[in-house]
Amino acid sequence: MSPQRKLLLLGTFVHSKTAQHLEFLHNAAVAVDEQGKIAAIERDVADASEAKERLVKQLGWNEAEVDVTEAAEGQFFFPGFIDTHIHAPQYANAGIFGKSSLLDWLETYTFPLESSLKDLSKARRVYSRCVRRTLAHGTTTATYYATIDVAATNLLADLCLSMGQRAFVGRACMDDPEINPAYYRDADAAETLRATQQTIDHVRGIDPGFDIVSPILTPRFAPSCTREAMAGLAQLHRETSLPIQTHISENLGEIQLVQRMFPEADSYAGVYDKYGLLTHKTVLAHAVHISEAEASLIAEKKSKISHCPCSNTCLTSGPARVRWMWDKGIDVGLGTDMSGGYSPSILEAARQAALVSRHVAMGIHVPVDDDDGAAAAAAEKERVKLTVEEVLYLATRGGARCVGLEEKIGGFEVGMEWDAQLVSLSQVSDDGGLEEQDDSDGFVDVFGWESWDERLAKWLYNGDDRNTKRVWVKGRLVHRRS
Amino acid sequence: MSPQRKLLLLGTFVHSKTAQHLEFLHNAAVAVDEQGKIAAIERDVADASEAKERLVKQLGWNEAEVDVTEAAEGQFFFPGFIDTHIHAPQYANAGIFGKSSLLDWLETYTFPLESSLKDLSKARRVYSRCVRRTLAHGTTTATYYATIDVAATNLLADLCLSMGQRAFVGRACMDDPEINPAYYRDADAAETLRATQQTIDHVRGIDPGFDIVSPILTPRFAPSCTREAMAGLAQLHRETSLPIQTHISENLGEIQLVQRMFPEADSYAGVYDKYGLLTHKTVLAHAVHISEAEASLIAEKKSKISHCPCSNTCLTSGPARVRWMWDKGIDVGLGTDMSGGYSPSILEAARQAALVSRHVAMGIHVPVDDDDGAAAAAAEKERVKLTVEEVLYLATRGGARCVGLEEKIGGFEVGMEWDAQLVSLSQVSDDGGLEEQDDSDGFVDVFGWESWDERLAKWLYNGDDRNTKRVWVKGRLVHRRS
Repeated sequence: MSPQRKLLLLGTFVHSKTAQHLEFLHNAAVAVDEQGKIAAIERDVADASEAKERLVKQLGWNEAEVDVTEAAEGQFFFPGFIDTHIHAPQYANAGIFGKSSLLDWLETYTFPLESSLKDLSKARRVYSRCVRRTLAHGTTTATYYATIDVAATNLLADLCLSMGQRAFVGRACMDDPEINPAYYRDADAAETLRATQQTIDHVRGIDPGFDIVSPILTPRFAPSCTREAMAGLAQLHRETSLPIQTHISENLGEIQLVQRMFPEADSYAGVYDKYGLLTHKTVLAHAVHISEAEASLIAEKKSKISHCPCSNTCLTSGPARVRWMWDKGIDVGLGTDMSGGYSPSILEAARQAALVSRHVAMGIHVPVDDDDGAAAAAAEKERVKLTVEEVLYLATRGGARCVGLEEKIGGFEVGMEWDAQLVSLSQVSDDGGLEEQDDSDGFVDVFGWESWDERLAKWLYNGDDRNTKRVWVKGRLVHRRS
Repeated sequence: MSPQRKLLLLGTFVHSKTAQHLEFLHNAAVAVDEQGKIAAIERDVADASEAKERLVKQLGWNEAEVDVTEAAEGQFFFPGFIDTHIHAPQYANAGIFGKSSLLDWLETYTFPLESSLKDLSKARRVYSRCVRRTLAHGTTTATYYATIDVAATNLLADLCLSMGQRAFVGRACMDDPEINPAYYRDADAAETLRATQQTIDHVRGIDPGFDIVSPILTPRFAPSCTREAMAGLAQLHRETSLPIQTHISENLGEIQLVQRMFPEADSYAGVYDKYGLLTHKTVLAHAVHISEAEASLIAEKKSKISHCPCSNTCLTSGPARVRWMWDKGIDVGLGTDMSGGYSPSILEAARQAALVSRHVAMGIHVPVDDDDGAAAAAAEKERVKLTVEEVLYLATRGGARCVGLEEKIGGFEVGMEWDAQLVSLSQVSDDGGLEEQDDSDGFVDVFGWESWDERLAKWLYNGDDRNTKRVWVKGRLVHRRS
């Protein structure tokens, strides 16, 4: 890669200060060094020349080596989104799930498509589109499931690196002969581990420091893995410290299957714990139906949960309870789980997280003839709803904590890396007219009287990829829209 | 208006044959006369010249007076969407609702904004944008709530007519001094009726046959109206046959309020029935919590329900049960209920209808220790889910039945009017590459191997206004995107 230029970014910066609060930095300047790191942040800067005066000189930089990007009035910089659970091969099936639920969905839609991606030209076509589209939606970090095919999985890693998307790329491990179809499974646990090692070696070859692309150990889910495969992957984790991703407790039928297949464990989380996969570097997707005891175990092990609201609704899995997970002290991020979820967009996942939290609220029973009980239930209904601020936190800092990168990405602080997007909303003209072709900014219409909180709410609820004008990963511009 | 030219449309046409089935007409031709009526439909037409040969000549038309529109490979014509419940003034608040539910949302967000639209320059700005954007999203018919202000309401009617959107425009009636704020209510029932008549007279002046724009009688909801106002509006309905719209049973607090305010009626639906508002031309928005008896009453009176899934989730109102309403024999359409719902798009409403039906399914209790009960519950869970076909029916033919226009719009049949959209999906190139600027077709990516059913599913779940390339109302081209 050619050496990167330094960046100076000017305008309004918005990021999560806490899960409950967004911070708005207006008239601010952020300086990014040639490694993609934030070198300085300055507030109350009048214009580019003052920024250069105060920041560039103070850092001892040469003006000629700095590219300046100024956000226009009403635009703002926001941290890049982090998708903590997405199936790259299933990009081609986005929106196609019929009336299925998890187990028949796997058989009908998913395994046939995934298997077909051993054809590398097809894999290149689907993966290129997936990475381009997710970048265009502001996803600067994606935690990918690929397929069992090593060459195709390695190709996905190549594409992420060349397009500049930060990615964890997981070669899907599935060696159980009962659950996995004969046409799409590993021969045995040894094959699972050998193939996994091949992807690790490949990624080490293209990105030795795992700066942009990292392998991730990926037992598909307990029912698809033998005990030997799980234990072997856990051993590999202990040797390499590589992160782990898998699914947990998405669907009631799946949970019964786990109980039947693993009678030696007292719960689904217990299976992963028994075979060494419940670690502080483990991301568990879904966790819709986990028990109190499982949540406590997950919290104790510091494993993370990827909340996939869109998928959980589409596949009728159930409404997951983020507030309760937070109460338990578990770190939660967002996953599109495409194509269990139809959308490649984390903004859509954040929107769906807000909506699903309202379905959780609506499901809380309010007792009649018990005033105290009714008041408590009403308060709990209010409490479980997620706010705009909270779902945008899940999409950024929450996701960063899930993938162990909270010191590097998810917010704007000196020493963190510049993974960000420039967001633009449509400004309504005085007469409200809309030229027929004027949809370049999407359809989030700002009239001018809205507070900044309201602008962020408008973006969350009606925003799309048109609002994301520029995307950077580690200081590199990886997507640009006119 | 200048006389319209005749149209000849060629390509693939998709519409609902029944609530469960989409019909796909490939290589078809539709001829539309200068009144905007479908004069002929021909299947298996090879190309434009054959279409002209077979259709134009057969109709005795002159080729020179016919405009030809040919759908490109992969594009299709679809009936225009019908929004059976949308608040035009609230367009400016789309996405802004915080953690509110109905009654505090009205007070905090809605009444202040609506009241401010007595400023006609502000009303013009908001209404112009609302009509442009909904047209751009393929809404060819909208059933609008406006505000209490007559001049602003009449302006909305003017704008719909000039922009060519078929619309029912309702001047909001709210004269109850207890519920409505002093700064935003009618002085009394007489004022309610006088103001309503002024809007009726205005619309009769600009569109005497109510061909494009019609008034609609709009008691906001029972708690906001006095008995006198409701009875007066019912009398007006009997004299004029004008349609009626109102809200029903959206929120539990609202229902308690109705019980307290109208002790003479045995239910919320009973209030409307008692005061003459429950007619075959009445559209009731929401109906989330109606009882069996209320549903039977609504069915008996042949009143319609506008299902507003997005709003019902955003405002934590509850998940409405469309399958159950259908079981009862009630006609159901879709409403955005913007800004109770965040989106101006009926495609989004259809998507949310599919999702909310899945939440209804997930809320069905499956008994343990009762095999028959469990099997029945599992079957019911399956049954209540709405399919792609069903929610697209709700968005078109279902909506047409709600507004009494099922003979005119919602499908493609000879004698119906040409209210339609041309839909285009993005075709993925062989290498899967995506030029940075190439988002003109949105992000519904078709790889080429998808069936037509799957293409429609992809459009439903990830489509947006970018996919709607052209929109016609009554044969007039009212929106065009490059």
